[in-house]
Amino acid sequence: MQPLAEIFSQGDEVVTGEIADTNAAWLAEALTGMGFDVSRHTTVGDRLEALIDLLREISARAELCLSTGGLGPTCDDLTAEAVSRAFDRPLAMDSVALGQIEDWFRRMGRDMPAVNRKQALLPAGAVRLDNAWGTAPGFSVTAGRCRFYFMPGVPREMKAMFRAVIAPQLPLGFELAPRPRVVLRTVGLGESALQERLDGVVLDGAQLGFRAGGAENQVKLAFLPGEPDAAIEEVVRRVTDALGEVIYAVVRDGVGPAQLPAVVGDLLRARHFRLYLLETASAGLLASRCGGEDWLVGARLEPFPERLLADFGMVASDSPLADVRALASLLRDRSHADV
Amino acid sequence: MQPLAEIFSQGDEVVTGEIADTNAAWLAEALTGMGFDVSRHTTVGDRLEALIDLLREISARAELCLSTGGLGPTCDDLTAEAVSRAFDRPLAMDSVALGQIEDWFRRMGRDMPAVNRKQALLPAGAVRLDNAWGTAPGFSVTAGRCRFYFMPGVPREMKAMFRAVIAPQLPLGFELAPRPRVVLRTVGLGESALQERLDGVVLDGAQLGFRAGGAENQVKLAFLPGEPDAAIEEVVRRVTDALGEVIYAVVRDGVGPAQLPAVVGDLLRARHFRLYLLETASAGLLASRCGGEDWLVGARLEPFPERLLADFGMVASDSPLADVRALASLLRDRSHADV
Repeated sequence: MQPLAEIFSQGDEVVTGEIADTNAAWLAEALTGMGFDVSRHTTVGDRLEALIDLLREISARAELCLSTGGLGPTCDDLTAEAVSRAFDRPLAMDSVALGQIEDWFRRMGRDMPAVNRKQALLPAGAVRLDNAWGTAPGFSVTAGRCRFYFMPGVPREMKAMFRAVIAPQLPLGFELAPRPRVVLRTVGLGESALQERLDGVVLDGAQLGFRAGGAENQVKLAFLPGEPDAAIEEVVRRVTDALGEVIYAVVRDGVGPAQLPAVVGDLLRARHFRLYLLETASAGLLASRCGGEDWLVGARLEPFPERLLADFGMVASDSPLADVRALASLLRDRSHADV
Repeated sequence: MQPLAEIFSQGDEVVTGEIADTNAAWLAEALTGMGFDVSRHTTVGDRLEALIDLLREISARAELCLSTGGLGPTCDDLTAEAVSRAFDRPLAMDSVALGQIEDWFRRMGRDMPAVNRKQALLPAGAVRLDNAWGTAPGFSVTAGRCRFYFMPGVPREMKAMFRAVIAPQLPLGFELAPRPRVVLRTVGLGESALQERLDGVVLDGAQLGFRAGGAENQVKLAFLPGEPDAAIEEVVRRVTDALGEVIYAVVRDGVGPAQLPAVVGDLLRARHFRLYLLETASAGLLASRCGGEDWLVGARLEPFPERLLADFGMVASDSPLADVRALASLLRDRSHADV
């Protein structure tokens, strides 16, 4: 059995929908990859009672909880106080943490405001998690059956603290074995048609899932930890045989082409083709998704088609399609691109 | 008291962090704006027991629950079955829903796969929510003290169903009074310094919050429903006096400049200035954030600076900064931009 993990995000700005919670997805992906079974994410606002209730619930349910937010210096930062009350552990000043916060302000050339002292108050028995990337130290406590890690909510600080301080500790405290995962990315068939093609295919205990997207649908297989490669390949072969030509990519454990532009890029690169992009209505979105690729020789965004034609000494004809073709041909020559 | 609402997202792809849950933020923002008190978001994967537990928890806690995901035709779509088991309501075929699904496939020119019949199975007592934007009908049930609405997880379908079918019903079933909210956007001071400047400012019961961001920090005030404008303005005046020149924008109830590019845009527009963007290292990101603005006359992405200079008949000098200035001046003339 993989250890059960939960993600807990705190903040009025998240619970009211002012911002989408990207921290939870980032942490869940990291934990899943390490071999945890992430069973739940929960978000609550900056309210003491709500935080206390949730901490107690999680301590009875999960073996690991990663929490973000609520460690700042202001009146709406309540995490340490909530932990203190939920698990009956009085707050005490951590003099090392206080010294680190004072140092941080000194390096910034500023005096430490008195309100920042609050960030050095940790619940009794907590292990401090040093924050070299901001003022708020994190901390870890064990309560019930669960080990909690509390991190800042600012994504840059949270990610740095997770990578440097928390991730290296986790394999010591938990028996981790990731589940091999295979994703088959398809275009051209709906979810239900995919499901029908797979009826009767023997999966040998692999868990089958689907994900519907805009242009593509995914078929997902999750295997048991430690499943031998040969057994995985055999199941994947049966599934690919059943699905047929609609598969455009097979991704094992997250390794593989992540986005359709990447697949297009591989094809361009294999043929030594180079691409010049011209955008009008898509307003630069396409270029921003291809930026930095070695096969992109350049891009231009021009919201006014007439001006574009004038630039190339052309006049709009009756056929916009013919104009676009002529323009593409001119651009291809001038930009030394192949397509 | 505002009615308590929760958001519930279902899906392995969300709980494992494959995708960030943007549905929850979108729905929470809509509900907050209508006058609900959104107290919690929860995400669980595609597991029957986890879904049943969560549905029962929410039915005891909230007055409204908006749920997304799990309505598809495949084996990992479990919402209707979980509702049926959690609240003891047998599933039954809804013939109108079945007819709608068959119609949808007919309009697409395809036969309905047999697995899609499952999407027309609804728990006893459920009210069907028509889906004109995809195959999965939604449904609504009341259990415990809570009214549940179940919607598809595909954002396009979810948003359309919420706007057209659910949002118009909510004011009929709940007494709604939104809390006036004012956000003061600041640059130049840290959260703790902002908090210190506000110590002793009389807020007359307004709830004070902070949000730390990259370049900016926000000071947030939430007032009681029905608070008169004059009282709100008086508190905002006290807060702006205390904070001083660090405020760059004041946003009332979400109305105001949303992003720094928008503020820059307003300034450009007020002076009738037009902007031409030239990007190299930022790879089109800047243009995509300004695309569609009337003050943007065009943009060009060119990853190779030498080629850019050659295009304008220039040769790189020893001073990259001087080159960039000369280039900007040429571009400004050619593109009829002002900056």
